[in-house]
Amino acid sequence: MPNYIKIFLLFVVIAPNGFGQEKEPTTPEATEFYEPVPPKVIPGTNGTPPSDAIVLFDGKDFDQWISSVDSMAVKWHLNEDGSMTVKDKAGNIQTKKNFGSVQLHLEWKSPAEVQREGQNRANSGVFIQQRYEVQVLDNNDNPTYTNGQVGSIYKQGVPLAMASVPTGEWNTYDIIFHAPEFSRGGNIVEPATVTVLHNGVLIQDHFVIEGTIKYIGWPKYQAHGKAPLVLQDHKDNSRVSFRNIWVRELD
Amino acid sequence: MPNYIKIFLLFVVIAPNGFGQEKEPTTPEATEFYEPVPPKVIPGTNGTPPSDAIVLFDGKDFDQWISSVDSMAVKWHLNEDGSMTVKDKAGNIQTKKNFGSVQLHLEWKSPAEVQREGQNRANSGVFIQQRYEVQVLDNNDNPTYTNGQVGSIYKQGVPLAMASVPTGEWNTYDIIFHAPEFSRGGNIVEPATVTVLHNGVLIQDHFVIEGTIKYIGWPKYQAHGKAPLVLQDHKDNSRVSFRNIWVRELD
Amino acid sequence: MPNYIKIFLLFVVIAPNGFGQEKEPTTPEATEFYEPVPPKVIPGTNGTPPSDAIVLFDGKDFDQWISSVDSMAVKWHLNEDGSMTVKDKAGNIQTKKNFGSVQLHLEWKSPAEVQREGQNRANSGVFIQQRYEVQVLDNNDNPTYTNGQVGSIYKQGVPLAMASVPTGEWNTYDIIFHAPEFSRGGNIVEPATVTVLHNGVLIQDHFVIEGTIKYIGWPKYQAHGKAPLVLQDHKDNSRVSFRNIWVRELD
Amino acid sequence: MPNYIKIFLLFVVIAPNGFGQEKEPTTPEATEFYEPVPPKVIPGTNGTPPSDAIVLFDGKDFDQWISSVDSMAVKWHLNEDGSMTVKDKAGNIQTKKNFGSVQLHLEWKSPAEVQREGQNRANSGVFIQQRYEVQVLDNNDNPTYTNGQVGSIYKQGVPLAMASVPTGEWNTYDIIFHAPEFSRGGNIVEPATVTVLHNGVLIQDHFVIEGTIKYIGWPKYQAHGKAPLVLQDHKDNSRVSFRNIWVRELD
Repeated sequence: MPNYIKIFLLFVVIAPNGFGQEKEPTTPEATEFYEPVPPKVIPGTNGTPPSDAIVLFDGKDFDQWISSVDSMAVKWHLNEDGSMTVKDKAGNIQTKKNFGSVQLHLEWKSPAEVQREGQNRANSGVFIQQRYEVQVLDNNDNPTYTNGQVGSIYKQGVPLAMASVPTGEWNTYDIIFHAPEFSRGGNIVEPATVTVLHNGVLIQDHFVIEGTIKYIGWPKYQAHGKAPLVLQDHKDNSRVSFRNIWVRELD
Repeated sequence: MPNYIKIFLLFVVIAPNGFGQEKEPTTPEATEFYEPVPPKVIPGTNGTPPSDAIVLFDGKDFDQWISSVDSMAVKWHLNEDGSMTVKDKAGNIQTKKNFGSVQLHLEWKSPAEVQREGQNRANSGVFIQQRYEVQVLDNNDNPTYTNGQVGSIYKQGVPLAMASVPTGEWNTYDIIFHAPEFSRGGNIVEPATVTVLHNGVLIQDHFVIEGTIKYIGWPKYQAHGKAPLVLQDHKDNSRVSFRNIWVRELD
Repeated sequence: MPNYIKIFLLFVVIAPNGFGQEKEPTTPEATEFYEPVPPKVIPGTNGTPPSDAIVLFDGKDFDQWISSVDSMAVKWHLNEDGSMTVKDKAGNIQTKKNFGSVQLHLEWKSPAEVQREGQNRANSGVFIQQRYEVQVLDNNDNPTYTNGQVGSIYKQGVPLAMASVPTGEWNTYDIIFHAPEFSRGGNIVEPATVTVLHNGVLIQDHFVIEGTIKYIGWPKYQAHGKAPLVLQDHKDNSRVSFRNIWVRELD
Repeated sequence: MPNYIKIFLLFVVIAPNGFGQEKEPTTPEATEFYEPVPPKVIPGTNGTPPSDAIVLFDGKDFDQWISSVDSMAVKWHLNEDGSMTVKDKAGNIQTKKNFGSVQLHLEWKSPAEVQREGQNRANSGVFIQQRYEVQVLDNNDNPTYTNGQVGSIYKQGVPLAMASVPTGEWNTYDIIFHAPEFSRGGNIVEPATVTVLHNGVLIQDHFVIEGTIKYIGWPKYQAHGKAPLVLQDHKDNSRVSFRNIWVRELD
């Protein structure tokens, strides 16, 4: 549902009555509504997918993904334990499907054996809509710039906390992302927002994204529509692994 | 037109297209609209009423007004020059008609003979919707608190400039007021705003009103609907005069 | 951190530059920041408290709680399995501590043995700040009004999905709540918002709360400060159980 | 004053107190403020410039203007009655000075002798910041598309009324314009707004401008700073005249 409709509905619900036109109800029943009925969803357990989720990776294959380099088959490692690992220099991978606003779950792990420092330690990233990166990094005893540390919205949003598990163990990201909305002419009208729970700890709290991330320069929005989810090959043999990736579409 | 509808229309006009759904026009005609046709209004000259204005006072009578004290006939002075003058202790007067958002024009004059100081110098006020006061005061060589000086939104909004004519001459107020909007439960949802030109000089610039004015205490909104325009008797023989009062309804 | 500061910071970060005053950076380092450093938090597992959480209930005692009826000791049942169960007619219970914006985790369970229908089936509620209720109800094969069903913001916000586990099993609520902000005079300036994950499924998505809930009538805000968390005794022998309750303060 | 400061101040004034931190005043004096003192401005009469205005054209010369074609001296007609008239094919003219938010007054007149129809009748325009056009057109008995008629924000904002004087007489435009604000990266953050009184009649009421006007296509913002005021040569021998042009800077 586009935001302007949501905002309209919001105003219909909470807003002006011209005062006195909508009488204060006098019975409980007057404020009880029966339709529409929300869908029933069977929840997962410990991060496994709910019944209405689109499973993007369950460890069996790369069927939902292509290489971002050549749009061909993914060349990353498919592991026997149901995870995948970035293959150095193989390039980013991305979903075949495009997404707007989503609830996104994924799990990631740095290799237990530590190599290099700062941004060159185990480094990857989750690029929502190909543009807005939630940083993946082994930050344990490995300081870096705070707007580039694990859980940051890269070069924009410092996380509220550093909530990683020990290096080599599985981290979870539970992400609620709302896609930006643009005017017909291409102006940003409603910036994207993102909420992130890192291992259950709130680290991004309805953060307002400032625009497409730039490595050099200020973020800026360029109008776009639905777009793939991208996982990053940081091209330094970072060997980050991922598993249990699913989304629920929110629009 | 209530604000939520305006906001909705605003969003329809300027807002989201899901990108790519609404194609960029390729002809000039594609962005030219013919309906609805705005009404034709014959403008006044030098502040006299446009053809679609509701004339509240043209100097002939108090037909549009009642006393705020007893809802009876107005006891203020009706002058031969087409103006009215506050009668001391006669109390405030108010329009019979209730108003929402309006463009309001009025003219006021302090007596040429100066008496007393500060707020006790020639003092009156224009209470829009009975609650939101644009201060009327002879401030010439008569300093007072800035949020109570001529052109202030009393106890809230300091004017951007002090633009009075010499004491004893006619001042004009051209006011654009948008009524506040409340939720069905009575919360303030959209605060009132006011723009004031004092003798043609912008002194309140889309000022966001904080609530009903209190002489003692912080302003607070109480839900209300359309309400009369009130002119103040400050009860200290201030003898402020008014003339040429008209409104155009904006909703 | 109060919202007006956050909004100010937001504007400092994303907003106006007068154009040309803040030059586009030409190096990566120009957009990398090192301070302040976010705190390190050791996450829990499967909903157990992170290291910086305030544990409100861990199954051992009611030390963090009092009765809402008489401010005396809580008379609900303390169970051997580390949970508590509502004691019929014992009344609501509430935390001793007051809270503003929080991340809140709790788990709840309906009795396996089903009794009664609709709102009279196992019914309780989580009243954030004593006023804003996230509904707790056994809705399995038990329809009721949608703005009163499990996971609703009672009488306001229909959940996006019905994501309960089978009756008799433990449900989780992960809640991100932002307290409302009021003007100095008591107007609502920034409505409260709430996000709820029910068993990991997003069911309230930054929902804008309309005011204090009324059983009869429209919601309305009354200015308030920090306030306790309340758990409801619905007074119909609903026998809902709770466990593992913790909060992280967000302001 | 940039908008983010204004918004910050707004929040300081009207917004959150954490409740109970800022006590309700108990004396009138507690809500009376004395500094800073607004500047004194001597108002004009009938649209003549107030004492603090920048006079852009008083009929004597084109000293404040250059040709938009070649940045050289203006080639429009300077008339003996203190007005100027567009010279056909001489091109637009613009102020030497750049402006942000302004109160702008100007007067314009169509030639008494009517020629041609629609947009080809006496046509000119006031381009605020070189981009946002308030349409100037002889619409008397001359219908055209409503978002291109006299007083429209061209191709965007239909005027609330058609308030022209008879062809050949002088019209006034009193305009309150707030410049758009852009993020450091160039996103539109605060759209421009414009209020227009046409011969004293409110025809644009805090209209939110959607972007730089395009003759073909949707409006779109491009980040910019202060910019000149431009008067249009519509290049069809429209012979529109202007006089009495002044601005007051609002930032």
